[in-house]
Order: sequence, then C-alpha cells, then structure tokens
Amino acid sequence: MKKATSWTYKISIIMCLMIASTKSYALSDQDLTQIQMLKETALSSNLAYEIDESLTTEVGARRVGTVNDKRAVDWATAKMKQLGFDKVWTEEVTHIKWIRGTVEAKIISPYPQNMVAIALGGSVGTPKDGIKADVVEFENFAALEAAAPNSLKGKIAFISFRMERKIDGSGYEPAVKSRGDGPSMAASKGAIALLIRSVGTDDNRVAHTGGLSYQDGIAKIPAAALSNPDADMLQRQVARGAAVKVFLKLTAERKDETPVITANVIGEITGSESPDDYVVIGAHLDSWDVGTGAVDDGIGVAVTLAAAHHIANLKERPKRSLRVILFAAEEVGLVGAKQYVMDNKDHMDRHIIGAEWDFGTGLIYEMEPGVGPSALNTIRELAELLAPLGVSLNPKNTAKGDSDMSALGNAGMPAVNFSPDGLQYFDYHHTENDTLDKVDPEALKQNTAVFTIFSYFATQSDVDFRK
Amino acid sequence: MKKATSWTYKISIIMCLMIASTKSYALSDQDLTQIQMLKETALSSNLAYEIDESLTTEVGARRVGTVNDKRAVDWATAKMKQLGFDKVWTEEVTHIKWIRGTVEAKIISPYPQNMVAIALGGSVGTPKDGIKADVVEFENFAALEAAAPNSLKGKIAFISFRMERKIDGSGYEPAVKSRGDGPSMAASKGAIALLIRSVGTDDNRVAHTGGLSYQDGIAKIPAAALSNPDADMLQRQVARGAAVKVFLKLTAERKDETPVITANVIGEITGSESPDDYVVIGAHLDSWDVGTGAVDDGIGVAVTLAAAHHIANLKERPKRSLRVILFAAEEVGLVGAKQYVMDNKDHMDRHIIGAEWDFGTGLIYEMEPGVGPSALNTIRELAELLAPLGVSLNPKNTAKGDSDMSALGNAGMPAVNFSPDGLQYFDYHHTENDTLDKVDPEALKQNTAVFTIFSYFATQSDVDFRK
Repeated sequence: MKKATSWTYKISIIMCLMIASTKSYALSDQDLTQIQMLKETALSSNLAYEIDESLTTEVGARRVGTVNDKRAVDWATAKMKQLGFDKVWTEEVTHIKWIRGTVEAKIISPYPQNMVAIALGGSVGTPKDGIKADVVEFENFAALEAAAPNSLKGKIAFISFRMERKIDGSGYEPAVKSRGDGPSMAASKGAIALLIRSVGTDDNRVAHTGGLSYQDGIAKIPAAALSNPDADMLQRQVARGAAVKVFLKLTAERKDETPVITANVIGEITGSESPDDYVVIGAHLDSWDVGTGAVDDGIGVAVTLAAAHHIANLKERPKRSLRVILFAAEEVGLVGAKQYVMDNKDHMDRHIIGAEWDFGTGLIYEMEPGVGPSALNTIRELAELLAPLGVSLNPKNTAKGDSDMSALGNAGMPAVNFSPDGLQYFDYHHTENDTLDKVDPEALKQNTAVFTIFSYFATQSDVDFRK
Repeated sequence: MKKATSWTYKISIIMCLMIASTKSYALSDQDLTQIQMLKETALSSNLAYEIDESLTTEVGARRVGTVNDKRAVDWATAKMKQLGFDKVWTEEVTHIKWIRGTVEAKIISPYPQNMVAIALGGSVGTPKDGIKADVVEFENFAALEAAAPNSLKGKIAFISFRMERKIDGSGYEPAVKSRGDGPSMAASKGAIALLIRSVGTDDNRVAHTGGLSYQDGIAKIPAAALSNPDADMLQRQVARGAAVKVFLKLTAERKDETPVITANVIGEITGSESPDDYVVIGAHLDSWDVGTGAVDDGIGVAVTLAAAHHIANLKERPKRSLRVILFAAEEVGLVGAKQYVMDNKDHMDRHIIGAEWDFGTGLIYEMEPGVGPSALNTIRELAELLAPLGVSLNPKNTAKGDSDMSALGNAGMPAVNFSPDGLQYFDYHHTENDTLDKVDPEALKQNTAVFTIFSYFATQSDVDFRK
C-alpha cells in the first residue's frame, strides 16, 4: 500500500495540475487540493479499523430485534456524536420477531454422521421431536423446480448446488435462489423440510445463514443450510445409492404477530450553502446473529463513519449536507431502507446521490454510476480522482445503488456502486467466521479514501446528478 | 505432479542403471526395477484417497470408547481383508471412559459476547450451573508458571499464546504445553478453570480439542480451548482494562473407574524368506470426536494400507513380513502403541524397522533415520530412491519413530521419520474441520509412493538396521 500511495500521490499532483488548467470542471482548484489532502488523511488513518474494532468488541452480533440490536443503535448514536457529526438522530423501524433456537441435523442411515447446520433466517421450527425422513438430492434450484408435483411427499429436499468463487461476487445470485425461494418450492412439491448447501465459498464446518422468503399460500416448512463439508458428506452418502435418512430438529419460531422495534441511525454533516441537499453514504447496522458482524456490515459502518469524520474535520463544511445512514434490518429484506424512503419521501428529490458499502473485505477496483446523461462528464472527473487508488470506471451507467441504497435508487436517487475484490467475502458471509480478524486494515484505508473523495466531491459540487 | 512424475521417471532410470553397475547394494537389480514399477503404480493409483473416502464417509469420527471406534475396528478389519493382506487380527486395548458433554462459554462483562470453545479431552466438568469468574490472562505457559501461589484463587486462568505456522510443525510443541500441563499448573495457583487459545494456526471460529494431562495430587479443574477469533476477542476486552467476567459451563465427565475396550488392528503381508522378521508401517485408527478424522489420521490409515496393498499385489511376497499396525487410542496418549509393545515384547527384536504416518496433508520433503551406524549406508540407498519424489535425507540419524511408532522406537526398534509440508496441518488438527475436503489426492499419491518404496526396500533387503 505504501508504494502505491507514493506513486498515486505523484500522479494525483499531475492530475491536479491538469484539471486546474481549465475552468469547465465541477470542483475548483482549491477543492481539488482539499481532495488530495483528504485522500492522504484517509490513507494514513487507522480510524475505520478502530471503529470496526469498537463495534465488534463492544457490541458484536446484532440481529434485528435482539438486545444487541438496541446496543448497536446506542453505540452508533454515541459514535456519530463523538466523530463530530452536526446532527445525529434515529428513525424507528419495526419488524417481526424471530427466534433462532437450536438446530440438530444428522444422517441416521446408512452411515450415521453428525452434520453442522444452521436455520435459515425466518424459518419455522420442526415438530418438537424433530423429523426423520429420506433425502432427495437436487443439483440446483431448477432441478427442484422441475420435480413432479407431490413427488417429495414426506421427504426432505436437499439442494447441493455449490456457489462459485468470483471476484465480483456474481456466484451469489445463482446460489442464493435456493435459500430464498427453495423452501416454498420444496413445500410445493410436498417436501416436509429443505436442506441446502450453504451459500458460501469456504470449506469450513461452519454453516451460512441468511434470509428465506416464504410464498403466500404454500405451507411453511423448516429450512436449514449445511456447511460445505457436510453437504459433501450427504452427497457422498446419497451417491452410494441406498436411501439416506436424516434427522432434523429446529426449535426456531416465527412470531409473525409480535413486532420488534429498532431504528435507522442517521448522522449529518450540515452543508454550508445547500443544507437541504443531501449526499448520502450508507451501510447497515444490523447483522446476523452469528459471528460479530465485523465484515457484514461492520466494514461499511466503519468506512462511511470514518469518511464523514475526515470531512467533518475540515475547517469548512462542504456546500451540501452529507448524510451517513446506518440502516436497520437490512438482513431481513432492506426493511430499514424502505422505511427511510417512506419517512423521507417528501424530500427524496433532495437526495442528490448515494453510495452504499456492504461488500467488504477487499480493495475497490471499479465504480459504476447510475446518473443522468449530462452528469456523466462529472462522474468522469470523479473517476480521474479515484483512478490512482486503483478504481476504474464502468461506464454502463446502470447503477441503482447497492444493498439498502437500492431502495433509495428505486425512489429516484442517482447512485454510484463501488465494486471491491470479493474473492474472500463469501467465505465469511453470514457465518460465525464473520469476525474482526477477517478485516484487512489496509483495504479499509483504501475503501475509506474512496468514500471520502466521493463524499467531498459530491457535497462540494453543484452538479445535478439526475440530469 | 504429472510433470514431476515424468521428470522423476527419467532420473530414476538413470539411477537404476547407476545402482545396477555395482554389487555392494542392499537390493538386486530386479528389486530396483520392481521399486520403479511400484512407484509408478503408487503415483498413478487413487487407492489411498478411496480408502480415506470410505473411512470418513462410512465411519467418520471415532474417539476411543465410542460406538464409532468399534465401527472403525470392524471397518479396518474388513478393509485389510479386502486389500489382500495374508493375516488380519486385532489386539485388545483398554482405556478409561470420558464423556465430552456440552460446552457454553461467554463473556458476561464488560461486553457480553458468546465464545466458541471446546472441552479439552479428559477434562472434568464444571459444577452443573457453570462458573462465573474474572479472567486473568497469561501470555504463555511460562507466565502462568511464574504466577504467585494462590494468586489465581477463584479466577479463570487464560493462556493467550498463539501457535506459530511452520512447515515442520515445530510451532506445536511450545503451544501444546498450555493444553497438556496448563490445567494442573493453573489449579496449583488456585484457578478454578483454565481457558487456552486453541493450539491451531487457523482463524476459524472452530476450536481445537486435544488431550490434557492432570498431575497427581493437584485439583482437577475444567479446561477448554477457545477458537482463535474468540481468544482475540477475550484479549481485546482484557486489554480495555476493566475486569472481564466469563461464564463457563462444561458437562464433561471423567469415568476413571469405567474401562472402555478397543483394539489395535494389524494386517500382515507374510514374508517369503523371513516371515518372523517384521517391517512395520503404522498410523492410528482412532480420532477425536470432532470432524471425521479424514486427516488425523485417516491419511495415515489410507497411505499405509494402500502401500501394503501395492506390495500385496506383486507376484511374489518380499523376503520379510510387512505389518501395517492401525493403532488404537493414540489421541489419549499412545495407549494402543504401548499395549502393542507389551503384547509383542517377546519378538520386539524381530521388528526390523518402522515408520508412522500421522502428519498429513502435504508432500513429504524429508526423511530422517534412526538406525545403527553401519545401516546408514543402506539408508542412503533408500534416500537415493526417494530423492526423485522430492524427499531429502536428514542425516542426523536421531529418529525414534513418530507418534505411535515412538513407543516401538523406545523399545529398541530402528525407525524412519518422514516429514511433510505441515503448513496447513494445524489449521484442521483436532477440529470439526478435519474432513475429506482437506485431503489432497495428489499429495496422498506421493505419500503412498514413499511408503511403498520404503516398505518394499526394507522387506526385501536383509540389512540389520540395528547395526
């Protein structure tokens, strides 16, 4: 990183001079100098790592509706005040209660073996003595979908599809369909439970949780994910040809009638000229209840707070306001983000542009905008500022905002999506292994530099990114 | 591997010719040709992997005294018969009963966090409601040893020493002292329980078990290992300065008066000229009760059985007998190996030389003998045969036999120790992660080739390795 920094510094100076030589750009010479200084600050500061260390150590896992979720809201509120935000407030978010309970999964025959499994988020439990049934394996969701009606009566469906490791995380989408839509699809064929291979790229005996989505009008069946080595084991036993009987017991409980209350936590650096125009950067504050959420989305929380702090530390406020939104209840379906859009619908058009950070742990290598055609030139200027950090411009211009920010993007807000090296991300995602040791302090510095530059650039310019 | 094979093949032929040009060598030209053919067979056969796949899938974890331990003995007996051994028998081994029970470990204050922990093998349980006590951290065993008498009264001692990753596994010894001797040392200072950082090199939220050794006359206190990320967490909380209180509940039970019965499983390829002279290769059949023992010591079981099978498949039996000993109860203190020495004491002097394989998962890069001075020249011949496989000779000549084989080595048997690349080994050792996906089929081929060559060389020569 050191080498890159000194090299990028020289390039930046040259670029500064080049930009300074014309007048048709979004930012002034002074602003561009400011950006170089902000970049140096971000690249040399350990603040983002310290924030994540604080969150992971002092709060830890913070699933929506748990005691720790409330502790996280208090932590975030206090942290924002400490970091120099001008305004800090919360906006209430509600969700339904879910109790994870315990899980027991084992092969009974032909060869008894314990399996490491985890309930999918939102799953119902099994009957209290568990269930014993033969397993029917499907190589992917499409194969399950193609099964004849009633063909799984009394059986446990098992989708053995393995997620592929790809730098852009694009292996996730084809795999996660089994988790989201698998339970209702299996139930529609008569299955009494669903097991899936974890949606993850690791080979640890640690299973990956994540939300499921029951379809209305179809029986809700219990659903759990097996760790990759356990899915291998189950496949090996199935491949031997004899019937494979599994015992599964989940004590999970859905309390669809019991609301839980949490909150989006919002901090603002108030703009000096257009305080009612908002540039937003965000991440989600909630996590799953396994691991400590140091990566998902402790990294996003840390990077966005640190970026805002570096801007708050400047002598003068930028022209527009910068909002950091730490969204509630992302893991259960962008609930906090949708609530934010509802709560802020009257001034959604004053949300100038936004970016989410919810895909640590690597270096950002690409930026894709989703802006109006005439704002693309401005984005190119931003891209030139980010290029020395290793960030290239994807000119497709179809971004709608990542993760929570997609709710704001769908409500008309222009967005920028940043893509990092995601090769390791799905080793830890939604597992006990999402802990601080997986966070790379050097990558956080680069991430923070990118978000700091983006934030300053967008708050200090007066470009309308919708146009 | 392919590239290495064809290259090694050419070298081997040249070496063959060189060796064939004199008469003072241990093996005949025909034997050396046989060895080249055995090597090619081992390098192209998937048998060792198939054996390990069978053991891990059809038996799985097999801690001494469990139902699965008995299943493993049956599996091994049947497998040896199937693989063409001339004689297969078992020799009874007894040990005491231990029940793992469950573990619950969490930080209560200042910042509540769950911790992933595992009882050390042989640990007593806590009182049934668990214990709550402040933690006192020690950076290593020596620091605990230096603590004043009674200074830990009512406390939980915590040794945070982290094992180093080294190719030869030499990080293990300085770390494992905390596991073996830590409980009694902590108790001698008044502690009511011991927590150690797992003896392992990974960063998974998966804790490493392994045996402890209570000292006579000192109170037996419960002892557990934390996963590396949890040990990090506990250290971070301790580093903040306030008292850190931990809840620990183990339901483990020692049944010192209740014997459990298991067996060494022994297979023999009977020698054609000196059937009562034994070359022995070995591994241990038992495992811990976490993971499936695919690595520890499924790899050793697979490699030694496959090596013997390749020799059993030859048209003629070698001169001396080859014994494969699959030892019982290694994990609890070489119990099966010590029993073997007692059971075979009358003909221990007919045990010509032995080698154990209990340190998969990598390629073997070194061999160290422990033989009489005049046998060293013969070992050099063996080394020349192994060199093309990447195995160099460590001429120190101090080997006493690895693992179980050390019991036979201490009883006077010459030995050869093979050292593999052990960089990954302690990521999986004694954890749930010891599963088949950690086994490298290509490394198994090389390992099997080494053991096949060693076995044929020693059974077909008439050198006295004691001299």
